[in-house]
Amino acid sequence: MNEKLTVAVCQLRTELDTAQTMEKAAAFVRDAAERGADFVVLPEMFNCPYSSRFFRRVAAEGHEKAVAAMSGWARENGVYLVGGSVPELEDGKLYNSCFVFDRAGKQIARHRKVHLFDVDLPGMRFHESDSFAPGSEITVFDTEFGKMGAAICFDLRFPELFRAMAVRGAKIVFLPAQFNMTTGPAHWADTLKLRAVDNEIFFVGASAARYAGFDYECWGHSMVLDPYGVTLAAADETEQTIFAGIDLARIDEVRAQLPTFLKLRRDVYRVAE
Amino acid sequence: MNEKLTVAVCQLRTELDTAQTMEKAAAFVRDAAERGADFVVLPEMFNCPYSSRFFRRVAAEGHEKAVAAMSGWARENGVYLVGGSVPELEDGKLYNSCFVFDRAGKQIARHRKVHLFDVDLPGMRFHESDSFAPGSEITVFDTEFGKMGAAICFDLRFPELFRAMAVRGAKIVFLPAQFNMTTGPAHWADTLKLRAVDNEIFFVGASAARYAGFDYECWGHSMVLDPYGVTLAAADETEQTIFAGIDLARIDEVRAQLPTFLKLRRDVYRVAE
Repeated sequence: MNEKLTVAVCQLRTELDTAQTMEKAAAFVRDAAERGADFVVLPEMFNCPYSSRFFRRVAAEGHEKAVAAMSGWARENGVYLVGGSVPELEDGKLYNSCFVFDRAGKQIARHRKVHLFDVDLPGMRFHESDSFAPGSEITVFDTEFGKMGAAICFDLRFPELFRAMAVRGAKIVFLPAQFNMTTGPAHWADTLKLRAVDNEIFFVGASAARYAGFDYECWGHSMVLDPYGVTLAAADETEQTIFAGIDLARIDEVRAQLPTFLKLRRDVYRVAE
Repeated sequence: MNEKLTVAVCQLRTELDTAQTMEKAAAFVRDAAERGADFVVLPEMFNCPYSSRFFRRVAAEGHEKAVAAMSGWARENGVYLVGGSVPELEDGKLYNSCFVFDRAGKQIARHRKVHLFDVDLPGMRFHESDSFAPGSEITVFDTEFGKMGAAICFDLRFPELFRAMAVRGAKIVFLPAQFNMTTGPAHWADTLKLRAVDNEIFFVGASAARYAGFDYECWGHSMVLDPYGVTLAAADETEQTIFAGIDLARIDEVRAQLPTFLKLRRDVYRVAE
């Protein structure tokens, strides 16, 4: 199995006009593919401004159109596409969902955000569960490079989710996200790093670019980390694509040098799986 | 229950002469108590240079003398003492063990390091299990301030251990440690922080001071962190005591503002307990 691949994170700024965003996203995916990406990753809610004012309006148009567009971008460019997330409407319920496509444009995974962003911090109140229903599945999927996992934003704060993915064989976890100006500087980079280090896997945090003055200003700072916690690529808060060359052989190397994932004491504590 | 307390971490340098180290430790504990500490915390293997050359030699003298001395320090100064760790010999087996004493000098806990430090990193090879046997217990104990937990150094790398402590009610976890010049800069501070943030508890990392030129140069940088990951006190690599004022009410506050620990999805994954 080929162990070398390139990941591109398109840190897009979501525009208020969805058609404009979709056109821009198509161009970013094409550009990333032309520059050698095997996996192209989009941000959370990339087609819908992250505000309750927009969630249902965008969802009411149906997710099918966005899903078809993403499938086309994957197929036309011959890349795996981790489609950030879009509002998904099913049976009257709205989900914050990440669709994943293979190089032929076939949908190979769908992750519905399991942990909704309901916080009441000084300077940051948000209650995502007013708009969305939570998912209940751990998402690991097969690719030509082996198994990969996907989760969304606030899911990052729950280590059991990523332990379970790693136990199931995930080598890279993709996390479309939009941390904000309160939680971003406090926790974003360190948490990404520890999920990588604790599980000795690659970790891709794909943020949106900051939209200054919008209701919800996100932190940006997309990152790709290796199994030892080394940063392979990092963005600031502006719109851009970052690339990381990944050698999956590094996983077994780190796990042998620093035996943690392989030395879990299942006789002492329960391990998510 | 009183929710306000002061923690002191005595970042001692372990001398090659054990009697000299013990005399110094006694003075550090007394000084910390005089400056208002309720809990005094010592480093890992504080009475024994961290090298296989010394482990059995110090252990052969028996741990009982060190345990009796620590009990005396707690009683004489009226403090809780988290006694770093010492080599403990039982039935021919050696353990890396942390003994904890209440203000009356009564032993209220003993943690035997569960995860031994067996690594083969570039520049850092160590095989602790050549000298020590592992413990198999999660250590949580009662105090006048509520439940607290203890673990040792490499245990830090296993998030399930701390999740289980938090689920069992631990409000502060004490971690005597000796990360080194390879793993210290790579992982020490970030890992301490994430264990605090993931469980929304206080976390105390108590390192030894660096002994330049000794077989094993430790990283130092003892730290106390709050449930949001804020550093309350931090040392460099030199011998010193750091103090942190802790208000345990902060735990419930953070857990309410940023509901992660209280929102674990036990229906989706297994949680250590």
